[in-house]
Amino acid sequence: MPVDKRVGFAVLGLGRLSLENILPAFAQAKKARPVALVSGSPDKAKTVAAQYGIKAEAIYSYDKFDEIRNNGEITAVYIFLPNAMHKEFVLRAAKAGKHIVCEKPMATSSADAKEMVEGCRDAARLLMIAYRCQYEPYNRKVIELVRQGKYGTAKLIRAVNVQNMAAPEQWRLKKSMAGGGSLPDVGIYCLNASRYVSGEEPVEIYARVATTPNGLRFREVEETVSFSMRFPSGLIADCGTSYGMHESRRLDVHTEAASFQLENAFAYEGQQFRVSHQDGKAESIDQIRLGQKDQFALEIDHMADCILNHRKPHSPGEEGTQDHVIMEAIYKSASTNRPVSLPRVEGKDVSRGPAPENES
Amino acid sequence: MPVDKRVGFAVLGLGRLSLENILPAFAQAKKARPVALVSGSPDKAKTVAAQYGIKAEAIYSYDKFDEIRNNGEITAVYIFLPNAMHKEFVLRAAKAGKHIVCEKPMATSSADAKEMVEGCRDAARLLMIAYRCQYEPYNRKVIELVRQGKYGTAKLIRAVNVQNMAAPEQWRLKKSMAGGGSLPDVGIYCLNASRYVSGEEPVEIYARVATTPNGLRFREVEETVSFSMRFPSGLIADCGTSYGMHESRRLDVHTEAASFQLENAFAYEGQQFRVSHQDGKAESIDQIRLGQKDQFALEIDHMADCILNHRKPHSPGEEGTQDHVIMEAIYKSASTNRPVSLPRVEGKDVSRGPAPENES
Amino acid sequence: MPVDKRVGFAVLGLGRLSLENILPAFAQAKKARPVALVSGSPDKAKTVAAQYGIKAEAIYSYDKFDEIRNNGEITAVYIFLPNAMHKEFVLRAAKAGKHIVCEKPMATSSADAKEMVEGCRDAARLLMIAYRCQYEPYNRKVIELVRQGKYGTAKLIRAVNVQNMAAPEQWRLKKSMAGGGSLPDVGIYCLNASRYVSGEEPVEIYARVATTPNGLRFREVEETVSFSMRFPSGLIADCGTSYGMHESRRLDVHTEAASFQLENAFAYEGQQFRVSHQDGKAESIDQIRLGQKDQFALEIDHMADCILNHRKPHSPGEEGTQDHVIMEAIYKSASTNRPVSLPRVEGKDVSRGPAPENES
Amino acid sequence: MPVDKRVGFAVLGLGRLSLENILPAFAQAKKARPVALVSGSPDKAKTVAAQYGIKAEAIYSYDKFDEIRNNGEITAVYIFLPNAMHKEFVLRAAKAGKHIVCEKPMATSSADAKEMVEGCRDAARLLMIAYRCQYEPYNRKVIELVRQGKYGTAKLIRAVNVQNMAAPEQWRLKKSMAGGGSLPDVGIYCLNASRYVSGEEPVEIYARVATTPNGLRFREVEETVSFSMRFPSGLIADCGTSYGMHESRRLDVHTEAASFQLENAFAYEGQQFRVSHQDGKAESIDQIRLGQKDQFALEIDHMADCILNHRKPHSPGEEGTQDHVIMEAIYKSASTNRPVSLPRVEGKDVSRGPAPENES
Repeated sequence: MPVDKRVGFAVLGLGRLSLENILPAFAQAKKARPVALVSGSPDKAKTVAAQYGIKAEAIYSYDKFDEIRNNGEITAVYIFLPNAMHKEFVLRAAKAGKHIVCEKPMATSSADAKEMVEGCRDAARLLMIAYRCQYEPYNRKVIELVRQGKYGTAKLIRAVNVQNMAAPEQWRLKKSMAGGGSLPDVGIYCLNASRYVSGEEPVEIYARVATTPNGLRFREVEETVSFSMRFPSGLIADCGTSYGMHESRRLDVHTEAASFQLENAFAYEGQQFRVSHQDGKAESIDQIRLGQKDQFALEIDHMADCILNHRKPHSPGEEGTQDHVIMEAIYKSASTNRPVSLPRVEGKDVSRGPAPENES
Repeated sequence: MPVDKRVGFAVLGLGRLSLENILPAFAQAKKARPVALVSGSPDKAKTVAAQYGIKAEAIYSYDKFDEIRNNGEITAVYIFLPNAMHKEFVLRAAKAGKHIVCEKPMATSSADAKEMVEGCRDAARLLMIAYRCQYEPYNRKVIELVRQGKYGTAKLIRAVNVQNMAAPEQWRLKKSMAGGGSLPDVGIYCLNASRYVSGEEPVEIYARVATTPNGLRFREVEETVSFSMRFPSGLIADCGTSYGMHESRRLDVHTEAASFQLENAFAYEGQQFRVSHQDGKAESIDQIRLGQKDQFALEIDHMADCILNHRKPHSPGEEGTQDHVIMEAIYKSASTNRPVSLPRVEGKDVSRGPAPENES
Repeated sequence: MPVDKRVGFAVLGLGRLSLENILPAFAQAKKARPVALVSGSPDKAKTVAAQYGIKAEAIYSYDKFDEIRNNGEITAVYIFLPNAMHKEFVLRAAKAGKHIVCEKPMATSSADAKEMVEGCRDAARLLMIAYRCQYEPYNRKVIELVRQGKYGTAKLIRAVNVQNMAAPEQWRLKKSMAGGGSLPDVGIYCLNASRYVSGEEPVEIYARVATTPNGLRFREVEETVSFSMRFPSGLIADCGTSYGMHESRRLDVHTEAASFQLENAFAYEGQQFRVSHQDGKAESIDQIRLGQKDQFALEIDHMADCILNHRKPHSPGEEGTQDHVIMEAIYKSASTNRPVSLPRVEGKDVSRGPAPENES
Repeated sequence: MPVDKRVGFAVLGLGRLSLENILPAFAQAKKARPVALVSGSPDKAKTVAAQYGIKAEAIYSYDKFDEIRNNGEITAVYIFLPNAMHKEFVLRAAKAGKHIVCEKPMATSSADAKEMVEGCRDAARLLMIAYRCQYEPYNRKVIELVRQGKYGTAKLIRAVNVQNMAAPEQWRLKKSMAGGGSLPDVGIYCLNASRYVSGEEPVEIYARVATTPNGLRFREVEETVSFSMRFPSGLIADCGTSYGMHESRRLDVHTEAASFQLENAFAYEGQQFRVSHQDGKAESIDQIRLGQKDQFALEIDHMADCILNHRKPHSPGEEGTQDHVIMEAIYKSASTNRPVSLPRVEGKDVSRGPAPENES
């Protein structure tokens, strides 16, 4: 797509993720380009702008953020801010007439999430939550295989997303900024995967929280969460997440006739996908290698596509809201030490827009 | 060890496991040999006896089982019978003055298990439950690494042992014969592994049972069980087992600084063991290949050793009893949909005898 | 097969291979059994005999070897002796009226090999060379896939079989006993695999020998050999073998549309087999796991089968002779530093008897 | 590095490699930026320029290429043209006062390569050949481990780089444009790797060429080449390359105490690196995962560094020339069917500049 036809994005927040992943991803995107930066560090912003060919006059401070309204090149914003700031800037962006991509978790409570969805609806702007794995080819392959049913029904999902959170001073360890600990930051990948793989919504949750006593890092937020979900079809999903373990990110789906194993499932790269199944008397473990694609670029292009075609994003605000509803049930189960029921949702993918085209 | 010094075993039951695994394993054992067979099929027994150089007069029917008392070559028995028959034959063997190796699960209830332990104690005979994984080199390596603590505390164990149970007519699908479904047959490996890896005993359990409706196979016993255990140290173990999924047998232990991944953890062969950890800026995933050893031979030799040295087996009746206590808690949790507490056990490996020497 | 119908074998030589692999393998064999031992160590033989239920009177010294003629239980002999002794004992066994399995390499020269083939032919006895990989399920799978041609013609074979030979004093490092160094001992696996995978015979060879100067181990025999073979179809096979490198045993076959990768190809166990091929836009790397079978048992049963059915073994003396012819060409090429031509052989598998049934 | 301090590059040729790999790589580079395009397709160039923030006036046709002399923003050129055009444009660029990165193979003969080296020397311009694997972290790790010698001397290198060349009409299959077939295009990676891993230069080569008769694709150039090299230290390198096989790119280095296995060694991504070695009685196969870095960006930054610091590139014209000398020996050996000797080179890395800093 010629560069002047591409959807122009303003990038909010110049942290590590935006600098190392998103801005380079725009070079791989085919329908989007960065046209503005919003940052609290004008010098940093100037350097970055120069590098990406962004005009100096398209650098905004947070104070003057609302002025993006007057910049016709900006069609959408991509928000990389601490979780607690998402709501304010989503609503301000919508009011400024811009479509929005917001990092996950979309908020720090389901109430805020709902307000954000409503705000965007009222402003008639699209809101997409940046669940990049829903656009990543290997995760999409798992979805495809499960839905296709060639290997029978999915009966058990096991997902783990754990890492060591090093820096005790960072905002992710402050309750007020992050809304929680490992769960909303990395556990959400397991939760979301259980939902997008099956298309179903859980009807019951049991959860445990475990935190190493006296740890410097975990004075405000939880270290480890184990949670088990039951879905309407009988499917069970057992998930684990932590801020206090060596990195491991794995998704296993067990069906009647196969197991789908995705290593590094939720990582930025390095996914390894295997399908184990019987092949006559032999066991065949097929490793499927898809051409590597930048998952951030795929995600950005999906949003650009939705904007250009007036279509609901595959992972809209409703999708993010549902994760908040469930995370609140997880915390409630852990604190009461009882399973928590959730309303039964009929149908599949009810919180999602149309799927991105599967090119794999 | 010269053959006439080896501990003589009578093998009870000539099913697939004893024919394909145990009897060939004796050829690899160094301190034990098969000297008698107990079977309901005299012809089959005769053929097998000839193959293994067992005397024709050392073939017994179940009726005449007690006559083994008079056979001085028989020092111990190895019991491969449907679960519901274990108790009777363990007690009869003890009364006949023989030491006993009994397949897992040792019984169909913790009450029976306790009776078996007492019966053997009264007869001053050793009782070992055939938890072969506790003798298998890769599982022992996991235990060694966790206990050694080089990579920090174990915080999360995830174990899965699922398979497709094909034959709807077999005794394992009858409640009265098996005592349960996937849980006591294959789920017990996950349960037992969580215990022997950590050395701890769970203080709380939450479990879910899921069974495909209208399945021919699951009229009496459960198909799938998911259970989560909390241990005194804060360790969580999340386990899954099933009779209705493609075979998968995997044990993952997550510590602060590593993850230990054992594929085919509970299989008869084909274990693949990896340790993921940080190595400077690189991630190192070390696959450790131990010389393959027959785990059945190691198990048999351990018992022979215990008999020769008057030592308690590493996996005695108390070890098997504890699994029954916990499985009863699992079923109770699933039926009440509430977590179930278990008495806190202080110390480590309290239900085990001395560990086999680690030769790896 | 009832034990008294099985083919009785006398085992010559009680070295590590026969004690740790062959004798235990008889327990897995279905058509053969060990009925006699031939050894220079009477005490060791007595212990082993007792362990395997072999009669004390069926123990022979090498001197009295010819007396096996009078033992009707012995139908065949399995020879594990230093290479230089193979010829004598094959001929003596044939004269004693017994069929023969002889370890590879069958001799120390092609001239001797031919004499052995003729001696057995004259005595109307079967001679099988113990190329166990030709009976091992994963190697057979590679043969099946290559011959079937689903992935196109095999164009390039790459095989490596290297190890560290530790003990400088052993007979394998004596030229007069072994006939050579790494080539006839481990390199022969690469050579033989190139031939059995393709079914063709090489028409030209180029080889290099490299030996670390001043090494204690390599005063008489070569350390490393690299050799490249051209086959009538245009197929090239590039092989490497050594006594001075960390163990690695790998066979790769490259065809138009796939690569077949067999790790641990020539090991006693631990084979890992992968087929890489295109699957739409994705690359699929299928790991195929066959039920593990004892390759020694399969080999022994094949010979028993041949004896019972008066059939030529799949790897007869002619097969072993051809390897000697080619190894002589390899040494000649290395010493002259010129490619060496071999006569063109039309047809496939011309030196082999019928293939064992493929049960995989 | 601020964008205006970065080394400005003109990119010659807008083929697939430059569009899909190099131009996106500039977004990851830290010391370089694209400032001009040279192309025969003005429209395509205009679109690309817009996308990368390159000024419209910095687009040149090949005719007007020499005008880059007047563009002060251009410090260096990166040449992606058919092999036969490299010489002309390298010399023109040098005359225009620009430093040069030229794709491999640098020419179509060693004579041309030498002329190019001299031309750049006379113009006092740096010439780097784009051997990206010499900058790729996994290949550098192999170099580091071999040179460090912790696992003993490297004795055998085995490298394979084969693929299916689909399009029969493309320039790579024309002798006059490409200079050869699979050898200079993909086989060169095996050749170059053997040299950079060891640091040595081969003293003798034997090679075979094999081409499927009557193939449409191989009327002018060879399909498959197998070549074996002997190095001064005794090291042997056995390499295979082809245009007619399923993709496989693998580098194995066998040392006394380890084997280093690099899968996808020469691919743009997806490298998997394993070190097999003994660890007590166990075999340890350590997979080492380095943070993924864009190898094109590393290569470009290296050249920028060399320009900024007046340093010889690690892979200068002399490095590329040596590959041409050896490839000519390979073709000569294949056509004469005799080993070909090369002059003995003392010392290590004699054709290379200082190594890039190893950040892994």
